[in-house]
Amino acid sequence: MEIYNQITIIGLGLIGSSLARGIKDKELTEKLVGFDINPDYQKQILDLNLVDVLCDKITDAVKDADLVILATPVGTYAEIGKEIADHLKEGATLSDVGSVKSSVLASLEDIVPEHVHLIPAHPVAGTEQSGPDAGFASLFHDRWAIITPPKGADENAVKMLETLWKELGSNIEIMDADHHDRVLAITSHIPHLIAYNIVSTARDLEDVTKSEVIKFSAGGFRDFTRIAASDPTMWRDVFLNNKDAVLEMLGRFSEDLTALQRAIRWGDGDQLFELFEKTRRIRRQIIDAGQDEDAPDFGRHHDD
Amino acid sequence: MEIYNQITIIGLGLIGSSLARGIKDKELTEKLVGFDINPDYQKQILDLNLVDVLCDKITDAVKDADLVILATPVGTYAEIGKEIADHLKEGATLSDVGSVKSSVLASLEDIVPEHVHLIPAHPVAGTEQSGPDAGFASLFHDRWAIITPPKGADENAVKMLETLWKELGSNIEIMDADHHDRVLAITSHIPHLIAYNIVSTARDLEDVTKSEVIKFSAGGFRDFTRIAASDPTMWRDVFLNNKDAVLEMLGRFSEDLTALQRAIRWGDGDQLFELFEKTRRIRRQIIDAGQDEDAPDFGRHHDD
Repeated sequence: MEIYNQITIIGLGLIGSSLARGIKDKELTEKLVGFDINPDYQKQILDLNLVDVLCDKITDAVKDADLVILATPVGTYAEIGKEIADHLKEGATLSDVGSVKSSVLASLEDIVPEHVHLIPAHPVAGTEQSGPDAGFASLFHDRWAIITPPKGADENAVKMLETLWKELGSNIEIMDADHHDRVLAITSHIPHLIAYNIVSTARDLEDVTKSEVIKFSAGGFRDFTRIAASDPTMWRDVFLNNKDAVLEMLGRFSEDLTALQRAIRWGDGDQLFELFEKTRRIRRQIIDAGQDEDAPDFGRHHDD
Repeated sequence: MEIYNQITIIGLGLIGSSLARGIKDKELTEKLVGFDINPDYQKQILDLNLVDVLCDKITDAVKDADLVILATPVGTYAEIGKEIADHLKEGATLSDVGSVKSSVLASLEDIVPEHVHLIPAHPVAGTEQSGPDAGFASLFHDRWAIITPPKGADENAVKMLETLWKELGSNIEIMDADHHDRVLAITSHIPHLIAYNIVSTARDLEDVTKSEVIKFSAGGFRDFTRIAASDPTMWRDVFLNNKDAVLEMLGRFSEDLTALQRAIRWGDGDQLFELFEKTRRIRRQIIDAGQDEDAPDFGRHHDD
């Protein structure tokens, strides 16, 4: 089902290349154009035949596009916006896939001309891997795509973008950008931050060797290393661009952790038990909502 | 290969029932005896035919055993020790599978008679599920079993226990109990604590609904819910019995998190990037060491 005549994807890493694959599979555009500044990625994009045309210049890539999707780290948006603003077609839609939304609006709103529809979006999906060869078309299946149209956004342009994400297999949620940033701070940004942090704490111990940390990681630690293996540039930009919500959620997390610490110090087993009992139910609800595997241990392979 | 004439397992939850299955599969004992105080579990144990004899009285279960393995929460050891001490055979080995080791020695050393070999052990393996029907024989394959013999432990008794765990598919590490507790504090106890904590923080938010937390959990949060679904009694006992090491590691974790928080507040992107870059390598090493899946996303199922 063709939704757009031309879609242009800027940045074909894990998310951008998954998008390209899904769009091609479902024939959602007449012409799919790509642009990526990374020479290694350029080669992979061509080898994998991910787009119809891979442009050398970003301005060429966007000039005939009905939909431009930024799939680069959010810290690059302002610069890219300046480069492409004058080359965007009248009535084109500019969207993205970034994990932070308020700052997207802030950095692009004044740059993008009036005749372009700026409609940020965020597919809540991914793996810890990076690059064009890490992508796959089903990445967005049964995941949520959050669209955060600014006030007064063109209804038809929003509908078309919704249709695109539905065709890619996603469920759609329309949300205010600020609320998005608070929701994602707790469901994604803080989890990444504490995963990065514990891996770093473990690395720096003096009397527990790195080889011990690795050998005995099946006790729980290994679960954290997965998201702590995510793209460093992307995540640096997330934290720099969602500062307020992240700092507030982090404050709550630390407060709660201090309460647990106190319960351990004073041997308050009832408080610990009560909390551990409550959290168990949330996993069940996530599985029931189709957002994680039903099998134990994430369905990790056990040979029996 | 028969190693013992009689093995008795006290507590047939996830770990105890996995042990029973592995011991039966490999015929590591002439007779396998079980005891569990939970009536629901008793029924499952019989239905699943996990042991040769399921005893009603714990003293009957242990009296002819050459090896008794405690597979109950560590908080129960002292009481169980008192009940069984006078009924243990001369030359029998008393072991366990608990996640804390120094306190095991402390609570059992003075209770267990001189003629019994007390040799604590800890298989670093598990899933978030509980109960006899959650176990499986291959749970210990390619995982590490840490044995922490006290000073002057009988060499032959240690060797036999090593052989048992090797036959169950584990790699063996001999370690001092105190060191074990520090290593596991960082590789298992703190990961569980912060997982429980973030799930609890997320539950308690006022402006982000529980349904939003569940819907958008694929952004990272869901990874933490798995270990936060682990058995509450077991984990309460772990924290109460490994207080010193947990509090110290938690202090380090919080210090490091505060430094990250400061970097975010002051917009220090270089510091964030540098840390995120370093932690990425540890995942690779864990995969190379055979302690996690090579596939992205823990090998979670994606339908393409």
